[in-house]
Amino acid sequence: MLTDADAAFLDRLRAKLPAASFRETTDHYVTENRGRWHGQGAVVAPGSTEEVATVIRACAEAGVPVVPFGGGTGLVGGQIYGDGPVPVILSLERMTRVREVFATENVLIAEAGAILADIQQAAEAVDRLFPLSLASEGSARIGGLLATNAGGVNVLRYGNARALCLGLEVVTADGRIWHGLSRLRKDNTGYDLRDLMIGSEGTLGIITAASLRLVPQPVGQGTAFMAVPSPEAALSLLAMAGEQMAEGISAFELIHRQGLDFLAEVGPDVVPPFAETPEWMVLIDVGLPRGLATDDALETLFEGAAEAGLVTDGVIARSEAQRQAFWAVRERIPEANKRIGSVSSHDISVPLSAVPEFITRGDKALARLGDFRINCFGHLGDGNLHYNVFPQKGRSRNDYANIRDAVKAQVHDLADALGGSVSAEHGVGRLKVGDLERYGDPTKLALMRSIKAALDPQGLLNPGAVLRG
Amino acid sequence: MLTDADAAFLDRLRAKLPAASFRETTDHYVTENRGRWHGQGAVVAPGSTEEVATVIRACAEAGVPVVPFGGGTGLVGGQIYGDGPVPVILSLERMTRVREVFATENVLIAEAGAILADIQQAAEAVDRLFPLSLASEGSARIGGLLATNAGGVNVLRYGNARALCLGLEVVTADGRIWHGLSRLRKDNTGYDLRDLMIGSEGTLGIITAASLRLVPQPVGQGTAFMAVPSPEAALSLLAMAGEQMAEGISAFELIHRQGLDFLAEVGPDVVPPFAETPEWMVLIDVGLPRGLATDDALETLFEGAAEAGLVTDGVIARSEAQRQAFWAVRERIPEANKRIGSVSSHDISVPLSAVPEFITRGDKALARLGDFRINCFGHLGDGNLHYNVFPQKGRSRNDYANIRDAVKAQVHDLADALGGSVSAEHGVGRLKVGDLERYGDPTKLALMRSIKAALDPQGLLNPGAVLRG
Repeated sequence: MLTDADAAFLDRLRAKLPAASFRETTDHYVTENRGRWHGQGAVVAPGSTEEVATVIRACAEAGVPVVPFGGGTGLVGGQIYGDGPVPVILSLERMTRVREVFATENVLIAEAGAILADIQQAAEAVDRLFPLSLASEGSARIGGLLATNAGGVNVLRYGNARALCLGLEVVTADGRIWHGLSRLRKDNTGYDLRDLMIGSEGTLGIITAASLRLVPQPVGQGTAFMAVPSPEAALSLLAMAGEQMAEGISAFELIHRQGLDFLAEVGPDVVPPFAETPEWMVLIDVGLPRGLATDDALETLFEGAAEAGLVTDGVIARSEAQRQAFWAVRERIPEANKRIGSVSSHDISVPLSAVPEFITRGDKALARLGDFRINCFGHLGDGNLHYNVFPQKGRSRNDYANIRDAVKAQVHDLADALGGSVSAEHGVGRLKVGDLERYGDPTKLALMRSIKAALDPQGLLNPGAVLRG
Repeated sequence: MLTDADAAFLDRLRAKLPAASFRETTDHYVTENRGRWHGQGAVVAPGSTEEVATVIRACAEAGVPVVPFGGGTGLVGGQIYGDGPVPVILSLERMTRVREVFATENVLIAEAGAILADIQQAAEAVDRLFPLSLASEGSARIGGLLATNAGGVNVLRYGNARALCLGLEVVTADGRIWHGLSRLRKDNTGYDLRDLMIGSEGTLGIITAASLRLVPQPVGQGTAFMAVPSPEAALSLLAMAGEQMAEGISAFELIHRQGLDFLAEVGPDVVPPFAETPEWMVLIDVGLPRGLATDDALETLFEGAAEAGLVTDGVIARSEAQRQAFWAVRERIPEANKRIGSVSSHDISVPLSAVPEFITRGDKALARLGDFRINCFGHLGDGNLHYNVFPQKGRSRNDYANIRDAVKAQVHDLADALGGSVSAEHGVGRLKVGDLERYGDPTKLALMRSIKAALDPQGLLNPGAVLRG
């Protein structure tokens, strides 16, 4: 039985921790950014791994639930617990140090509360790249990014958060510390607990630090927008780019005109890449080794693709400022989406070759349900689309409240029917627990429940996230 | 309590499976290749995933242990169980199909018994590369390669077996089937059971099929031998190569003269790359995108390295035949080692920058123990060395039997002291269970035992491997 983090419990905890560990429960900790989730809790921000263990041991003894809290940028309610006993909200905000950088080994060790942008800068300071990159990088913390196995724009080349982590330090549900901050590239001594903890969304242990993989800075970087006649053509263009540049393709983002229309309608201001915005376009980022000019490579790609009828127009960024401007178009779409207010947003993935079918069938299925504007964009190279459904102009998301569930079910059923996932990079959190039960393999779910029961028998850690509590 | 796969049990099993599923218990199944492990068991070779589940359910009901068996090429005794009840040896040898190839998606789905070389060929047939490559590729089966998270020569660029797997089909310890043959690049719906099963050496479930990641064939491939003055210089050369060619470096193997001396002494015959064999050399393999000539890139690297004093000599392969001849030198060293007969072999990894210190201190520590020949070679780019200790000429490994344990302890203690691993790519099997207990993090071990108890409460699956039974 779980119990409230009540005054008596907090008094006992105060006796064990420095005063600086206690925080007021402001909105930041209990209200999700878009206002869709509301929680409760007593905020504790330990200053060290040992202090995290102290908190967990106290919670385990008392049966108080623990909700780990990073930057609070999660999109599926994983960081917000509103419908059970009052939890300890365990914020990693005071553990922000980059502990060590091993530049020659391409390794950086950071505490869980380090903000992604700060880690990127620490890597840059030794002429390396930490490739994890996403819209919330200015506030997302590495512990949360690992707990949710975050994706972003560079997954195609460098993999998701899981692929960028060599080792972890973790506090277990009974308050022991696993010292697993390995700098090794290869280590086959026992079960892969690192990858089990990564993506477990704080339900199996508390990540307190991570050993991260850096990569050399690409010698030449280049960016282009290309207009494509269809998603099929975009896929063929991706294959052609892969044949020509192999791992040199860092990002390959599909963007529908709707995204640029939203930007024009509600901002933020961006410079549209084409005089006349095509229906579909891709944003391609390349990082090439010494000896290859990125402009030449992008031009060669464009010419070959034009000959094959895969592109109808293209612009190559001619300066770093123009590269940034191209990327701003892509990166500001989520802000425009937020301003419009979606009926329902989806973070699906399907096998690469099923992407065009997903888009065609999705549009048709939704047309039968109502009159929407669909903003489909995302990481085409990963088969990962943000397929977001919006009201027609002049109407609001609330006008569609009665069909929101039907929209979501249509989109998720379709992704599932095509062998896809209903959460490609955002995780399960509390939003998609029912989806996991509906679409997940029953044996997989049974194994997950066994593992949860084995590693957290009291069910203390982030109850109700990923698995029903 | 586990019990023997006795005649009565096998009779019951025969009633449930086609006659073709039963095999004579020949040496192949119960004697390790080098003769170091001897086991027992009744060999059952199911023809389908359903039949695997039937076998496991029968074993679970009777309490009969199960030893999964792939190609039998493991080096740590994981496939041989000799000191408990007579097990079912569950051979995947009849499940060898490549089920499907999705060339445009770079995905191939194979059954667990498919031999690595056959998978490589199936990939080549659609102009793709399956990059897992190691000495035993002609007989190792993909199920075993995944169960042990095999490494090999291309890990630097493409990762180990884990990194090349998108999804699994697994039979659990109670005979259920997890259908996880995903073709998705991104899927954040729940715990990472795939990576938990990979590397668990058959102790958590039976892998029956896998969804594998293919990559485009590199446009240009090139190979060079370079003589380096020291392991430190080799590391600096690796860094220089990474800066110039990024992911273009497919393999970067360190080789000591001792390996070539052994080849000259006992064969197999190879063509030595240098007229006078240097003490240390590296074998570099590159695969570059369109527009870059591999010879030019290797020459540029050599010239820069020569100027910096990092290389003293070099030869670039000028034909495919010469490339093969260069690689033959590397790939035949294990056979020469086997002919010489090691006192003790080690598969260690250390943080990259600690490699030179490991070699210096290892040589010194062993010199205090006795008079050896040390053949140190391996995957420098991964910090993974095969640091193998041999008798002086004219003596045999048996002459050193009384100090074998001391040699092993010295080498493993040193790897551990430098933050390394005592099993970089071969796994734990039964050989290194004690090492894991000695060097492993206690919290990690406790978590592993909890997971084992949760997923295989009877302890049926490969008992005594990885964890003491």
